[in-house]
Amino acid sequence: MEKIKERLDRLRERMKENKVTVYVIPSSDCHESEYVCAHYRVREYLSGFTGSAGTLAVTMEEAGLWTDGRYFLQAEQQLQGTGIRLFRSGEPGVPKLQDYVKQKLSEGGKLGFDGRVMGAFRAEKLIEAAGEKGAETLVTEDLAGRIWADRPGIPDTRLYVLDLCYAGEDTKSRLARVRAEMEKAGADVHVLASLCDIAWLLNIRGGDIPCVPVVLSFLCMTKTACTWYVRERIVTEEIRQYLKECGIQIRDYEAVYEDLPGLTEGQKVLLDKKTVNYRLLTGISAGAEVIDGQNPTELMKAVKSETEIQNLKTAHLKEGIAFTRLMYWLKNQSGTETVTERSVVAYLDACRQEQEHCLGQSFATISAYGANGAVVHYSPTEESDAKIEPEGFLLVDAGGHYLEGTTDTTRTFVMGELSLEQKRMFTAVCRGNLNLAYARFLYGCTGYSLDILCREPLWQAGVDYKHGTGHGVGYLLNVHEGPNAFRWKLQGQERPAVLEAGMVTTDEPGIYMEGKYGIRTENELLCVKGENNAYGQFMEFEILTLVPIDLDGILPQEMTETERERLNDYHEKVYRTLAPHLTEEEREWLRVSTRRI
Amino acid sequence: MEKIKERLDRLRERMKENKVTVYVIPSSDCHESEYVCAHYRVREYLSGFTGSAGTLAVTMEEAGLWTDGRYFLQAEQQLQGTGIRLFRSGEPGVPKLQDYVKQKLSEGGKLGFDGRVMGAFRAEKLIEAAGEKGAETLVTEDLAGRIWADRPGIPDTRLYVLDLCYAGEDTKSRLARVRAEMEKAGADVHVLASLCDIAWLLNIRGGDIPCVPVVLSFLCMTKTACTWYVRERIVTEEIRQYLKECGIQIRDYEAVYEDLPGLTEGQKVLLDKKTVNYRLLTGISAGAEVIDGQNPTELMKAVKSETEIQNLKTAHLKEGIAFTRLMYWLKNQSGTETVTERSVVAYLDACRQEQEHCLGQSFATISAYGANGAVVHYSPTEESDAKIEPEGFLLVDAGGHYLEGTTDTTRTFVMGELSLEQKRMFTAVCRGNLNLAYARFLYGCTGYSLDILCREPLWQAGVDYKHGTGHGVGYLLNVHEGPNAFRWKLQGQERPAVLEAGMVTTDEPGIYMEGKYGIRTENELLCVKGENNAYGQFMEFEILTLVPIDLDGILPQEMTETERERLNDYHEKVYRTLAPHLTEEEREWLRVSTRRI
Repeated sequence: MEKIKERLDRLRERMKENKVTVYVIPSSDCHESEYVCAHYRVREYLSGFTGSAGTLAVTMEEAGLWTDGRYFLQAEQQLQGTGIRLFRSGEPGVPKLQDYVKQKLSEGGKLGFDGRVMGAFRAEKLIEAAGEKGAETLVTEDLAGRIWADRPGIPDTRLYVLDLCYAGEDTKSRLARVRAEMEKAGADVHVLASLCDIAWLLNIRGGDIPCVPVVLSFLCMTKTACTWYVRERIVTEEIRQYLKECGIQIRDYEAVYEDLPGLTEGQKVLLDKKTVNYRLLTGISAGAEVIDGQNPTELMKAVKSETEIQNLKTAHLKEGIAFTRLMYWLKNQSGTETVTERSVVAYLDACRQEQEHCLGQSFATISAYGANGAVVHYSPTEESDAKIEPEGFLLVDAGGHYLEGTTDTTRTFVMGELSLEQKRMFTAVCRGNLNLAYARFLYGCTGYSLDILCREPLWQAGVDYKHGTGHGVGYLLNVHEGPNAFRWKLQGQERPAVLEAGMVTTDEPGIYMEGKYGIRTENELLCVKGENNAYGQFMEFEILTLVPIDLDGILPQEMTETERERLNDYHEKVYRTLAPHLTEEEREWLRVSTRRI
Repeated sequence: MEKIKERLDRLRERMKENKVTVYVIPSSDCHESEYVCAHYRVREYLSGFTGSAGTLAVTMEEAGLWTDGRYFLQAEQQLQGTGIRLFRSGEPGVPKLQDYVKQKLSEGGKLGFDGRVMGAFRAEKLIEAAGEKGAETLVTEDLAGRIWADRPGIPDTRLYVLDLCYAGEDTKSRLARVRAEMEKAGADVHVLASLCDIAWLLNIRGGDIPCVPVVLSFLCMTKTACTWYVRERIVTEEIRQYLKECGIQIRDYEAVYEDLPGLTEGQKVLLDKKTVNYRLLTGISAGAEVIDGQNPTELMKAVKSETEIQNLKTAHLKEGIAFTRLMYWLKNQSGTETVTERSVVAYLDACRQEQEHCLGQSFATISAYGANGAVVHYSPTEESDAKIEPEGFLLVDAGGHYLEGTTDTTRTFVMGELSLEQKRMFTAVCRGNLNLAYARFLYGCTGYSLDILCREPLWQAGVDYKHGTGHGVGYLLNVHEGPNAFRWKLQGQERPAVLEAGMVTTDEPGIYMEGKYGIRTENELLCVKGENNAYGQFMEFEILTLVPIDLDGILPQEMTETERERLNDYHEKVYRTLAPHLTEEEREWLRVSTRRI
């Protein structure tokens, strides 16, 4: 870890030159993307921590990394020997980043960060902290990037238009819907920086970010015009023609920073400070008025259209076949072949590639055997790659992109002998998962009202998982998407989103015993309308995921009759839907694996 | 209902004289009290609607009453023939009061209300609505009160100091805690108008409001001084002496309106706009700065001290004996005596009065037979008083004040034959009630996270109750108290309160079939700490209420084994605790009534 120390020292030299006393490095690109391409992995370069969420703060004396519960174990391991202190966000007594920054700054000090890779909302908090301490700020220099000698570039990507049979709605119609929302908000201009929102709006996909088929770009629209800021060299003639038909003009990616200062006096600009970067926000001409609000596209793309829903069912059938074939292969090992975490990834990839319209992984597959399963976001590397033995649990969390949509599934497979405790925990996770999936609720409920249905069996057993119960899933976009989610902790002033028919949310409780094992069972739930009666509109879920839950881990006597009935009902559907697509042997095995309990 | 029309006409004459085009009459006194004494029931006088929550708006042409789900049925009945339109707050398509007011006002119009009986928070919304329409306002006249010829006065009340063995903490200590919170908020002055908060802080009780033993008064404190604004004539020498020892001076009730304009330039005044009236707020000198925030006493009084908790257990034992004796009497009727809703109220009152330190009802008893049970806040009158027949349900919701605290219990008694549907619903209500009571959750959860545990059995059956699942309970104060509550709908920008150990909240699911029957089962839950392990601090509830749940309405086969075990566990505790205090016959009956199922 001398490498990391040496990099930090080089950063400190730059800080010294610029009189910066605290420098903050977030994990994002210029679009507050969750996943970023190699070019933007500055925080990883400087800390060694590879998780998708984490912010590094460096002073002349020390360095600290803030990350959330999903990554505590991983960060602890990866930061070992680097001298970087781990701050566990959300744990009692752990200071927030802005409080730490405030504490480290003093009169005459200077706070620095690269304003292009820091979201405006977060940046304003830090700037405020600096202001309170009478400290200066420097937000126009990428000090960390400057010391990165062999920094990767941004490779060209192939753009393509998503056909109407997949998208379900054309761009003209979507632009019109956004303009109607601009009208409601009283906005003349709308600036969009969120890559998934842009891709959804334009029905264009690319490949600028691993596992997220989007294009690094900005979009700026008025009531009549729309400009897409994108690397002009990757725009083919076909795409150019398509955009022209949609009434969209093209400008170079960087030109957005030149155009925003030109907005005229009194213009009202709708943008979301949570996704627009700080340089973009501060670049808007002083005469214009910013309306900070949710991007209208956020809710629109979360509510899947009838076409998308039908397509998603196809995508889940394909993914279900691939995942179930992996399970069949794992459960029918003769013991002669060596199976490792990485060969599991390869096998699943191969099964998925057999499916039509498959466009690869929607995120790096987690294949975690035994104790590795307790590291929530573990991905096997060449060094860590564990051999699967005939005992304990193998946790596989994986997803695919298809033209018919994106999937996200987790199954924990029983590879042999389990302890009673392990079976109890596996059963509790299954109960939580199904209790949420079979919920019935009045329209108006949010994922915050429902979360406890999933956690209660675990909480009754005195255990918990330190991550949300579920997230929205994009359609051939980021596998993690808002605003819908299942969580129990309200963050700050956040207003949870009402669950709307057409939203797809994962349902993924888990139990993680550090150094021992990890269990997680994840299905995707489509929110649908149920009965409408004198009490209101009842809502329900339809489970989209089609993979057996391993009965070898289930203790039927720990489930209520209702809970057993739910598992039987789900398994009956899995068998009925998958069977026609399997071989004779696979089918017979699936019949037994989805038997009534 | 000609009486009501005639009163509204007289109000309109006054409105005309004052050029008022829309006049709004809320249901509260000068303290945003939920219950008010007869003097302040102007809205009731003008509309005939007797519910505790409801706002009347009158224009020259029409009148409308806004109330919430608890009162829809009652308001519909009571408004019949008055010409007043019912606005069902929270129902889809029903305009909010301020939107209605805005719609009715026009340039040159004038909005009127009595600023002393309108909370500042609500008043500001109405004033804003008027401002948007360019309308004038008149907030210094009680136009509605002026037409009330035989308006009742405010009778004198006897004040008393709550002994330390009941209160558990003296006033000096409480004042010090409030001053520490003022310090944190950066406040120089704190203005308190909420009567329960004042009574809690001073450890003084009175009887200015039916069922709520408080004193009409205001309180204003600085870091060193404290003034109580109260009708001086009711302050005895003993109370005067007690206050002097606490360092509190007395000024007349009305003097607060004279003193606040005298606050000096730059003083920071902490107050809660939700409980301070509009005249009080606007009376504060322009040079002072208002900090709008929760009263520090709100959370303090919600978290019961060890002494209060021990006392509350005594209060619930007493109430449990009284309530269980009522049940014994009801279930052992020979059929020769005529029992009516009102004789049930009288019998319960008599049983309660036998208990030491009883100070009467904590709210008007609901005794509702058959179809009357579907009117959520029904109280029997001489005219409505129904005879109890040997069939269907009798719903009794009642509570007592004791020196040892306040109680709130609902039981629905099976008086004879029930339909299968009725039993199913009764069982679902019992399941919801116990699922919430036996919840286990991590510290940090709010009542919004837990609410669904109670509703889910009902929602699965396609029914709902249009009221919250539970409210906080005061200690010899208002039976309804914040900030803790079990609810599923977030109101506006409200931040739900974390459930703290020591909070007492009711758990009262119900099912109401209009014109047929009503069921509600209500226990009070004390929040307590459970296991503290690697996952955090687990929290649980202890059920304070000690009255059997009528097994004649239970279908054991509709409950899971866990649910049956919970009911058995609860009944075992009820029997064990009450038995020593009952007669031989009562005890034998209770043994059977709390048998294992």
